[in-house]
Amino acid sequence: MNETFQSLLVVLLLPICMYTSSQKTGLGLGLSRYVNPWVGTRDMGHCYPGATVPFGMVQLSPDTEAEPYSKGDGYNPAVYRYCAGYQYDDPTIVGFSHTHFHGTGHSDLGDFLLMPTTGAVQFNPGTADHPEQGYRSRFSHTRETALPGYYAVYLEDYDIQAELTATTRVGMHRYTFPEAKTENEQVHILLDLVHGIYDYDGKVVWASLRVENETLVTGYRQTNGWARSRFVYFALAFSQPMASFNLIDEKDQVYKGFWRKWDQNRNFPEMAGQKVKAAFHFNTMGKEPIQLKMALSSVSTDGALRNLSEIPDWDFDRVRRQAVRAWDNELGRIKIEGTENQKRVFYTALYHTFLSPITYMDVDGNYRGLDQNIHKAESFTNYTIFSLWDTFRALHPLLTLIQPGRTSDMIQSMLAHFDQSVHPLLPVWSHYANDNWCMIGYHAVPVIADAYLKGIRDFDSEKALRACVTSATYGPYDGLSDYMRLGYVPADSHRSSASKTLEYAYDDYTLAVLAQSLGQADISTQFLSRARSFERVFDPETCFARARKADGSWISPFDPLDTHDPSFIEGNAWNYSLYVPHDVPRLMELMGGIQSFRQHLDALFTSDLPEKYYAQTEDIEKVGILGSYVHGNEPSHHVPYLYCYTGQPWKTQEIVHKIMRTMYRDSPDGLCGNDDCGQMSAWYIFSALGFYPVCPGSNEYIIGSPCIPDAEISLGKGKRFRIKTVGLDENNIYIQSVKLNGKSWSKTYFFHEDLIPGGEILFTMGPEPNPQWGSAADDCPRSLLKRLEK
Amino acid sequence: MNETFQSLLVVLLLPICMYTSSQKTGLGLGLSRYVNPWVGTRDMGHCYPGATVPFGMVQLSPDTEAEPYSKGDGYNPAVYRYCAGYQYDDPTIVGFSHTHFHGTGHSDLGDFLLMPTTGAVQFNPGTADHPEQGYRSRFSHTRETALPGYYAVYLEDYDIQAELTATTRVGMHRYTFPEAKTENEQVHILLDLVHGIYDYDGKVVWASLRVENETLVTGYRQTNGWARSRFVYFALAFSQPMASFNLIDEKDQVYKGFWRKWDQNRNFPEMAGQKVKAAFHFNTMGKEPIQLKMALSSVSTDGALRNLSEIPDWDFDRVRRQAVRAWDNELGRIKIEGTENQKRVFYTALYHTFLSPITYMDVDGNYRGLDQNIHKAESFTNYTIFSLWDTFRALHPLLTLIQPGRTSDMIQSMLAHFDQSVHPLLPVWSHYANDNWCMIGYHAVPVIADAYLKGIRDFDSEKALRACVTSATYGPYDGLSDYMRLGYVPADSHRSSASKTLEYAYDDYTLAVLAQSLGQADISTQFLSRARSFERVFDPETCFARARKADGSWISPFDPLDTHDPSFIEGNAWNYSLYVPHDVPRLMELMGGIQSFRQHLDALFTSDLPEKYYAQTEDIEKVGILGSYVHGNEPSHHVPYLYCYTGQPWKTQEIVHKIMRTMYRDSPDGLCGNDDCGQMSAWYIFSALGFYPVCPGSNEYIIGSPCIPDAEISLGKGKRFRIKTVGLDENNIYIQSVKLNGKSWSKTYFFHEDLIPGGEILFTMGPEPNPQWGSAADDCPRSLLKRLEK
Repeated sequence: MNETFQSLLVVLLLPICMYTSSQKTGLGLGLSRYVNPWVGTRDMGHCYPGATVPFGMVQLSPDTEAEPYSKGDGYNPAVYRYCAGYQYDDPTIVGFSHTHFHGTGHSDLGDFLLMPTTGAVQFNPGTADHPEQGYRSRFSHTRETALPGYYAVYLEDYDIQAELTATTRVGMHRYTFPEAKTENEQVHILLDLVHGIYDYDGKVVWASLRVENETLVTGYRQTNGWARSRFVYFALAFSQPMASFNLIDEKDQVYKGFWRKWDQNRNFPEMAGQKVKAAFHFNTMGKEPIQLKMALSSVSTDGALRNLSEIPDWDFDRVRRQAVRAWDNELGRIKIEGTENQKRVFYTALYHTFLSPITYMDVDGNYRGLDQNIHKAESFTNYTIFSLWDTFRALHPLLTLIQPGRTSDMIQSMLAHFDQSVHPLLPVWSHYANDNWCMIGYHAVPVIADAYLKGIRDFDSEKALRACVTSATYGPYDGLSDYMRLGYVPADSHRSSASKTLEYAYDDYTLAVLAQSLGQADISTQFLSRARSFERVFDPETCFARARKADGSWISPFDPLDTHDPSFIEGNAWNYSLYVPHDVPRLMELMGGIQSFRQHLDALFTSDLPEKYYAQTEDIEKVGILGSYVHGNEPSHHVPYLYCYTGQPWKTQEIVHKIMRTMYRDSPDGLCGNDDCGQMSAWYIFSALGFYPVCPGSNEYIIGSPCIPDAEISLGKGKRFRIKTVGLDENNIYIQSVKLNGKSWSKTYFFHEDLIPGGEILFTMGPEPNPQWGSAADDCPRSLLKRLEK
Repeated sequence: MNETFQSLLVVLLLPICMYTSSQKTGLGLGLSRYVNPWVGTRDMGHCYPGATVPFGMVQLSPDTEAEPYSKGDGYNPAVYRYCAGYQYDDPTIVGFSHTHFHGTGHSDLGDFLLMPTTGAVQFNPGTADHPEQGYRSRFSHTRETALPGYYAVYLEDYDIQAELTATTRVGMHRYTFPEAKTENEQVHILLDLVHGIYDYDGKVVWASLRVENETLVTGYRQTNGWARSRFVYFALAFSQPMASFNLIDEKDQVYKGFWRKWDQNRNFPEMAGQKVKAAFHFNTMGKEPIQLKMALSSVSTDGALRNLSEIPDWDFDRVRRQAVRAWDNELGRIKIEGTENQKRVFYTALYHTFLSPITYMDVDGNYRGLDQNIHKAESFTNYTIFSLWDTFRALHPLLTLIQPGRTSDMIQSMLAHFDQSVHPLLPVWSHYANDNWCMIGYHAVPVIADAYLKGIRDFDSEKALRACVTSATYGPYDGLSDYMRLGYVPADSHRSSASKTLEYAYDDYTLAVLAQSLGQADISTQFLSRARSFERVFDPETCFARARKADGSWISPFDPLDTHDPSFIEGNAWNYSLYVPHDVPRLMELMGGIQSFRQHLDALFTSDLPEKYYAQTEDIEKVGILGSYVHGNEPSHHVPYLYCYTGQPWKTQEIVHKIMRTMYRDSPDGLCGNDDCGQMSAWYIFSALGFYPVCPGSNEYIIGSPCIPDAEISLGKGKRFRIKTVGLDENNIYIQSVKLNGKSWSKTYFFHEDLIPGGEILFTMGPEPNPQWGSAADDCPRSLLKRLEK
């Protein structure tokens, strides 16, 4: 069977297998049946297919490779493919680990890999080419299932069926072993505390294991990676007593001392070191499945033991049903009508938006804080994994809309982070008890401002404002003191200085909004002034945003197509110059007026990016590039909507549809780049519903063009907002007219207030643009900054 | 000035300096003025001279060298000299660290080294030969003071006077700097988290620092050494705000990521890694002393912050006075009359017996347990550092006698350790949240049995018995399953097998005593039978204890003088064969009868150990060897008293005096070997008072010969036991007669019951032995085992 045919067979058989599987268990009659966890598991999506519940602390998923972060003397680019541990085209599974990021462009985690085996015990994972030289196993997609809250695979090398499900803090495994061939044949369950994602020799700074009794093991490990100091603890329960076990430390300890009085080779119940692994042996081969429950905690093994109470018994199927119900409930926050394919793409995206941030506390509310002390979350759920540079754009506005309770908790989590921060600073990229400081900006501010503005106010808003102001004026942070002094971040002492200036200016606008809402006029005025800083980095000669030095001179040479230009990060000047969401009218002036601005946008979406620049857009599939617009890089996410500011909303409609159609597909390679903790998917959800928050922190949504014929958003307290369409099909993508809450609506924007009491928007669609709709100057969104300045 | 003259000068000037110092401060009018913390700081005593309070968690002391545990490919013997961090003959001080073992023969600790400096900042310690190449400083004993709770030294290279004092959990520093020579001159305080005792590259598996504000720093480190997984946290407060600081990690991290957005070189307030150090800079040079308080915790930096409350202000002198008062009070548990020298030797020894175990919990009762979880000590003080193979012999019996409250807490600490042990086992060598398993036996059992027998019963005695039985029957432990099967530990599968058999048999006797006291006849019978196991390792041919194989054959070749003979550990057959404290009469039979036994003892104390064996007694000074008797090795500690069982008590009297006179002296080299957490000193205290607990776990004391003319032991509840002598001087060391509680006493032993109601023993001494006293068969101690069997 050649590879092409094999792949074809997989594609054909997969939906059948999945359908059969869901019928068999009586599961999957709710919305979660439309979710395809394979989406984004091939190449650059960086999604994992494993079992998790909404915003769950455990992401129990197979890892297909463990490329090291560095090989020999430098960074190993291959590691990047394994941000989520899994690559769809890989032939082997190393094992099942309990923590995974969703869609990130860097990684970490992969904690506590478990793998069931038979035959001789092997402690090394082996290689994809020679799986028989290690504990990993071959597998094929024909005997692999991924559904929300459930994952199953047949491990060919061992004739083992492995199934996974999860609760918020516990991963549950069910391993069905073959019949024993000889009387004394044992099966093994390996636990590898060295295995990790974005691993390097020495990343595990310490690990520890204790076999508490014949059915219970506890332990922990500490890693130094993307998170500088990260602790994870576990409690692992077995459904059957083990017959014996081995705990090993593959690193020879310098001091061995009186440990030699023990026979540590077999059944010695404690081990600690940097390369710790375990093998647990069972005599019950083939008789009944062996089940495992692994609870995680950031606090202690005691905490993990308490978390184990989430699954009080061994009813795997009930746990699985619970997970499915949880997904059905959460996905039900938006109900849509449409084709099977529309539903699959939509609910898969919605599923992706509910994977992070993750719950980060034990059942008793305890968690390890940023100061490495144990804190208790009083009356809120504590979250971590805030990839804010990505997610402030659409993910958080989406959660603010459909998950107001969790959004409040997330803000309280950010404020707790602030309290625990030594600087102190709100989170930039909150990563368990660390901030990995990934990317730029202080984008916790727009998240807080946006939520507050939209009525989520059950947190200490005075404290929140204080935290925002403190973060935004913390001089040592990433060029901030220069920014405050010069009005822009100077390129001679800071990288990506133009990007930083643009984003700080935007963040400052949202801070001004928040301060104004809280009646703090002085603060509002202060930050309104800073919100104009974007003007300082616009070069009147090139009409691009461009980095300048402390002496005011522009940085040269300047190549507006170069993503690696030191002015910017993850975006070239063509894209990044457009990042002034709070004052697009002024941006248009700076870029030479409305005509030039239109030309710029047209060129952006149509002029092909020369090949030499293409290679720079690292984590983006070719399909993710439209002209020179790079959808996989967040700074552009609002750009398709900018035509609405120019009186040409049909261009937005066309482009948005093109992106939705080509870059969000129901297949393993269905994403055009990293899903970035759900930001890419959140873009889709908004866009599919027909509007997008171009400027979070304002209350404004910009109207795009829906691709879903009918949708209803639950807003809480029984309120619903309905999106209806007339005439929508794959050709009728242009808005002919709009009715908002029964009134004819010609503006290309509306406000959160229009939506939140409940109501309806009706789009009448047609095959050609209606140049009358949304094109008048009055129909275009205004300058938000000016509005606020009044 | 040549070295000899210099040393002479030091010896002459030292007492004067110390006297002057104590006069100046108005301190030291209590008993602590007799304590000489220099005793044992030269060569093999392994004592530290620094500041600590009785049983304190902080031992703040200078380290004079940091020899690595291994050099190149193997163990570095030089590290052994630095078990306590300090060697009297060293010319430089590296800095002041907060944790030190007292008198151990292996080591660890040296946490959180602080060092004040001036001039250029250096982060490496430099070498003794070239102190100027690092931060260490030259010093001399002429400007160095060590007193209980206080240490001071003049750091020559920096013109800095450094003073140290302590509370239970906080070390306090006062640094007096020279006048500034230039306007901008700064002084520095270095904090080196890499420095340690018994250090090796990689021993610090993780460390972390946070500059919380300009006067407060927190942090922690984890080490892998004698303790496999050890965590220590701190909070460090400065009396003055720092002007600036640098935190560095000398190990290049593999992943640097977005940390690069920070300028981490100066004033970046958090750092974590494996080689973390800090320099804090102050502008106040010469104006007033800079004071520091460093609180420790095993729990968290939050815990350390709470512990900081032990010193609420900056009154160094008050803290010092408090420490002195604490010492005066504790030392007052035994009041003696005698010469200045007698008092200095005696109270120094008593001081040594109050240094370990150490308090091991925060002010709120929280501590990190053996399972690495945080536990709370409810209604007892939790202790760690139980070096039980050493201390069950005399230290614990002494504490049972004069520190009954602490003894009860220590037993409760052992029971908590048992609860947290995964095996479960009572402590062997309890080492913070670890057991380092050093040496052999399960000697927590005799400590518990001895205390219970002597009336300390305010702990859960049923549980204690259960813990003892569980520990004594835990098969995987050090040959125990073979011991239970064969009646002895077989030499073909276990090292030191004869030593283990002898000590297990003794421990079993004490377990039988405890069980009988608790009315558990079955358990008592079971362990009484095991208590006879010593017989199995006596070779009737050689009349020595000797290891045998599982098949019953004796191990050959057998060299009764060889300490490295695989039969034994820290003792050759000449010494170790005598270790049957619970049945000396039977031992005499096994060794060929009373005459042979007498000859054995005579030979032991008179035949010089041939040179080739001498080298094996590693940690013993030449002065610590009497014939072939090695006082520095604990298994012999009871041996001088064995003459009392033979009707020749005057030989005990003579030898005990010889040992007291020659091996306990008021000088830096005043100890003949490691003080072993106070066991060596406890031997002295008992012996100086005239009796010794040859068999802890019985209630029997064997009478030796006092060297103190008059002493009074406070027994609590207002009761006192008085030791009086008539005629005692350095020649009159032989007992002529004894009166116990007013009655004439010819027996060479008495019981705890004779002492505990309060009372008096009167020794009449003379220059020649009185062969009538204590020599009749009835005067000799009986078989304790037989007594129990009845």
